[in-house]
Order: sequence, then C-alpha cells, then structure tokens
Amino acid sequence: MSERIMVLEGDGIGPEVVGCAIRALEALNDAYGLGLEFVKYDVGARSISQGEWTVEGVIEEARKFRAILKGPMGDPGIRNRQGTEGGLDLILALRFSLDLYANVRPVRLLPGVSSPLRNFSRPDSIDYTLIRENSEGLYASHFGGMELRDEVAVDNQIITRKGVERVSRMAFEIARRGRGSPWDGRKRVLCVEKSNVLRSFAFFRRVFDEVSADYGDVEAGHMYADAMAQYMVLHPDRLNVVVTENMFGDILSDLGAATVGGLGVAYSANLNERMGMFEPVHGSAPDIAGKGIANPVAMLLSASMMLDFLSKRDAAVALESAVIRAMSSGALTQDLGGHLGSEGFTDKVIENMG
Amino acid sequence: MSERIMVLEGDGIGPEVVGCAIRALEALNDAYGLGLEFVKYDVGARSISQGEWTVEGVIEEARKFRAILKGPMGDPGIRNRQGTEGGLDLILALRFSLDLYANVRPVRLLPGVSSPLRNFSRPDSIDYTLIRENSEGLYASHFGGMELRDEVAVDNQIITRKGVERVSRMAFEIARRGRGSPWDGRKRVLCVEKSNVLRSFAFFRRVFDEVSADYGDVEAGHMYADAMAQYMVLHPDRLNVVVTENMFGDILSDLGAATVGGLGVAYSANLNERMGMFEPVHGSAPDIAGKGIANPVAMLLSASMMLDFLSKRDAAVALESAVIRAMSSGALTQDLGGHLGSEGFTDKVIENMG
Ligand SMILES: CC(C)[C@H](C(=O)O)[C@@H](O)C(=O)O
Ligand SMILES: CC(C)[C@H](C(=O)O)[C@@H](O)C(=O)O
Repeated sequence: MSERIMVLEGDGIGPEVVGCAIRALEALNDAYGLGLEFVKYDVGARSISQGEWTVEGVIEEARKFRAILKGPMGDPGIRNRQGTEGGLDLILALRFSLDLYANVRPVRLLPGVSSPLRNFSRPDSIDYTLIRENSEGLYASHFGGMELRDEVAVDNQIITRKGVERVSRMAFEIARRGRGSPWDGRKRVLCVEKSNVLRSFAFFRRVFDEVSADYGDVEAGHMYADAMAQYMVLHPDRLNVVVTENMFGDILSDLGAATVGGLGVAYSANLNERMGMFEPVHGSAPDIAGKGIANPVAMLLSASMMLDFLSKRDAAVALESAVIRAMSSGALTQDLGGHLGSEGFTDKVIENMG
Repeated sequence: MSERIMVLEGDGIGPEVVGCAIRALEALNDAYGLGLEFVKYDVGARSISQGEWTVEGVIEEARKFRAILKGPMGDPGIRNRQGTEGGLDLILALRFSLDLYANVRPVRLLPGVSSPLRNFSRPDSIDYTLIRENSEGLYASHFGGMELRDEVAVDNQIITRKGVERVSRMAFEIARRGRGSPWDGRKRVLCVEKSNVLRSFAFFRRVFDEVSADYGDVEAGHMYADAMAQYMVLHPDRLNVVVTENMFGDILSDLGAATVGGLGVAYSANLNERMGMFEPVHGSAPDIAGKGIANPVAMLLSASMMLDFLSKRDAAVALESAVIRAMSSGALTQDLGGHLGSEGFTDKVIENMG
C-alpha cells in the first residue's frame, strides 16, 4: 500500500525546510516500510504570480491526495490584486476549498528553547493544543465584505452549527487521545468565545456544550477570549485543549507560539476526516533564504503530525522523539542560540531516530 | 468653577475602591483647589436587576456630566435576558450611547509589580498605550446579530470612516503628547488590523494612513493582529501607541495587562471630545468584596486620567506620581505580595502627594 504525498515547496526558505523534512521522512520510509511517495510541486507566491500555477489549478491537483506537506508561502515583493502579500490567497483557498475545517496548532515548550515567560523553563511545562476553526467565522468574509461610498465597510462573522459541531468533536477526540495538562494531567477542552457580547459566539458556545455531552470523560469549560489571552501568559501549564473561532484562533495561536519561543518551532495540521495539510506556522523568511540556516523544526514536527494522521503512529512518534532528543542533546540552529545549519540539524535528527 | 463628577459605585469591590479614589481626590481637591464635587450613584448590576435603575435612566443622568468615575460592575449571580452576566450591558451601553469612542488603556509596568515576562523587570521598561476603538467594529453587533433555525448565526463587523478617523486622530494626539517608547524614545502609532484577510480591515488601514499624513512628527506603522500578539510578549518595550478595532482591542488590552501584572493595576479612560468615563479594567471580584483588601491602584490611576482629561494637569501628575512613589517605597496590597489593605495603601498614596 503506497501513499502519495503532495509536497508544496513554497517560497523563500520553503524548499530548504521542506527538503529537510523529506530527508527525515525518507529515512523513516526505509526503516518502517511506510511506502510514502513524494510528489513535489514548485508552488508558492512566485509560481502563481508568474502564471505557472493558478490557485484553482493547485486545488484541483490537491484533491487527488490525502496528505499535503506544505512549505511556507508568501513573498513581500509579490502583491495580489487587493494589494496584500502574494501567496496568502493560496493558503486560505487551500484551507477553505478543501474544507480543512480544523487548524490544529500545538503549543509546546521544546528542549533547548527559552520561553519569554519567567515561570516556565522546563521542557513540556507548556504543552497544549490550540484548535482553530478553519472554515468559517470572521474569515468567512475573506475579501467578500462590502464597502460603501468610501464611508463604511462591513464583514460578516458567520458561525454554523455544522462548523462548530465538527471542530468541537475534533477537539474532544484530540483531548481524549492526548496527554492532558502538564499541571494536573486532566483532560479538558476549553471553548473560547465572547458570548457575553455577540450572539454568534453565544451560538458557538451552545453548540459546543451540546457536543460536550457526548464526552463525559473529558472536562468541558468556557473562557472569554480576552481572559484567555491573559491565561495563556499567566497559566499556560493549566491548559490542555482549546477550541475557538477562526480569527480568535489566528491571534491566540500566534500568542501561544510566542510563549514557547516563536514561530520557528510552531507546527500545525489543517484537517478534516478525509485529508490533511501540514505546515509550519512561520513565513517564508526571504531574508535568510538560500543561506542554509533556516530552522527546520516546525516543518519536521508538521511532518510528524502528517504521519500520525496517516495512521503511521510508530513513525510519527519516532520522528517527534528524534527531534526532541536532538534538541535535548544541544543540537540547535542559530535562531535558538545553537550553531547548526538546517542540514546539520536534520542529520542530528536522523541520527536520533534509532 | 466647580465641576460635578458622576460617581458610579458599581458592584462587589466597587464601592471600596471608588471610596479610596474619592479620598485621594478630596485630598487633591483641597491642595489644588480643584473645585470637584462628587455625586454618588449606587449603580451596578445589582441596582439594575432590582429595578432601582434602568440602563436608559443611567444614560440620561450621565449626559448631565463631563466626567464619570466608574467602579467595576457585574455580578455572576445576576443574569440578564440573554443569559450573560448582569451589568455588562450597562458598561457597553454607557460606551455606545454616550459615544465614548476611544478606550485608552495604558500598559505600564509599575514599581513593585513583577512582570511574567523574563526580560522585563525594571519599572517602565514596558510603557505604552493601547487605544481600542470603542463605538463600532465587531461590537457594533452587540446582541443585534441574527440566528436562523438554530443552524447559523451571523454578526457584522462595521468599520466607518468617521470611526477610524476620530480614533486615529486621538492616537496621534496621545502619541504627540506622551513619552515615546522606552526603547528608543520615538513617538509612533501602530495601526493593528488584519487587512491581509478582510476588506473592513483594509479600509481601517487606509483611513488610518490618511489621518497619519497630518502628523508628520509621529511615525506611523502597521502590524497584523496576530503578529501584534507576539510582539506584545517579545518586544513590548518597542511599543508606544497602538490603535485597533474594538474586539482586537478587547483581547490585546487584556494581554497587555497580563504582561504588567494583571488587571489589578490596569486602568483606562473611555473618551470623546466632550466627556470621559474612567474605570479600572478589572471586574467586581465579589469573592473579596467587603474584606478591605482590594487593590485600588487601577481605580486611582483611572482617577488620575480623569484629572488629566479635566485639564487639571498638575493634580493628575501629583496623583500618578504619588501612586508610583508609594509603590516604589514598597507600599503594596496583598495581591502584589504586600501586606496593606485598600485603605492603608490609599493612606500611603496621600502621604506621598506632598
Ligand atoms: C497568512 C495569513 C493569511 C494566515 C491567517 O491569517 O490565517 C496566517 O496568519 C496563519 O495564521 O496561518
Ligand atoms: C465586560 C465586557 C463586556 C468588556 C468588553 O468586552 O469590552 C470587558 O471585557 C472590557 O474589556 O471592558
């Protein structure tokens, strides 16, 4: 049973970090007989702006796969029609058109990484998963909003029962399977909204509560988004799984990443039941592209999430453990205070797979 | 020239911390001949739920004043029609009905307060002002959203030219008058939005840019809200003045408060050209009400902002300096690791006014 993986190389440091991930995956392919086959696409902001690919063309192609390994995309020099950075439209189109409704973003303090938070220095003292609804919310209006006479602009936040049900269910399943909070080991899902202000959030909360009734073994709780921003700074150890609306998830997941050392180590999965797209949260960092110094950790751990999604559990754990062992032994790239390049770090990861 | 001040005592610890502020203000009243006259109202969630006041009645009364000193409001035991906490509707009604369009929230590391951020321990190493648009944005839909067949709920984010113009102007004026960033002393205003995703935010940004043209002496910049959440944790010292949409401001100002010791010390002003309402960002803390241990710092500094708004500059600075001197000398309430009660701390502040 071979499994073909769509590989989107992206822009800037994309091809480099994607290359590192493929190398690690190839090592596992042999060791675990995974039967993975990598189909590479030179797709990113540049290839779209040069007309080599259309957004629609990429989506059509993507539908043929169950898993997409996606490098960072975007190029500040390339602007799209609305004047925003090129490549972003493709990212959002992939999430929306493929209906990848759950954006799963682990927030985990890795060995060798220093948290800006004074009270958190031990690896895994911060270890939770933020799940961002990825198919609706305020993002439903992505460039669909309206503007009238240069006087007023309106966007809609749309929350559907289907949207909340499925992402809440995903959150409870992830909590059930996962590690529990570092603080008390308890499994809990926190639903984050502003139901004290908006009806759409009150609806979000109500549907979440209905779903929670099916998961008696997992605690369910609520927190307003403003209080959550505080909590992520003051008591991140008490968190386990968090689920929230798309825009809130965008902001809070970046905040979470900042507390564990920044975007260089932040990894993610965009999932539905049928397929998944796995990507680092960081951008394409054109300033360091081609220098061989990009940190591949986020890309490697995204690849580990991909293996897990494809039910290659042993290989997923092997990759994750190898990254963690390498970092524990002091193997770090320059952005984390180490001296290794992208390839040198990947060598260490592969050595640690044994 | 006497100036009548509307005093809303609020719920829980409200009457206690408001009492402390009035005592400090009375001391200044004598020393500086301010001619302030305090008109107290027992208004909060409780008085509204018991029918002593209606929201409309409070607003009508408020229109007679130029300044409102507002205690924290809300009571978890009191629910309003939509099932959310009582008292919140009154807060939002005051902001909206009185058109207090700018919610000015200083984020300042005070002496004696420990920041959860490892790299920031010196007082004033974090010192910026977050200005939250307070009259529109996603909050324009406050319980006005719609829900259809228990299947979908929609709220609108409404951004107007008038709304962005006036709050941006306020931001530039505050930057011009204020201290500049702790990092390089430069005066700058950062406009925070997600113009890479939504047209209403692109509109926000465009109008901000137009206003910035009138302020050549103040730097103008942009940052996406997700990047801002990171920046507030990693480089808060580089910030000076930040302006953003209502909901973003709600979340980011709580995040800012967390980085400087929490809501106990977070103060704010809700302003327009004609009038202002001054309130602590914290809630009514019913669990510690009546014990005399509540921290009055946020309430006292809100009162200082009120004096400033009323053009009583010397008295405003005297109050602010007295709070800071008291805290520097180790006068702290229990929540900050000290041993003073609310009144004992206020005594120290008054002693330090000389
Ligand atoms: C690049 C941008 C469109 C995207 C988003 O807003 O979702 C990014 O911030 C993210 O979090 O993946
Ligand atoms: C109490 C609540 C309605 C309010 C808000 O959402 O604005 C509060 O969080 C605040 O920041 O003042």
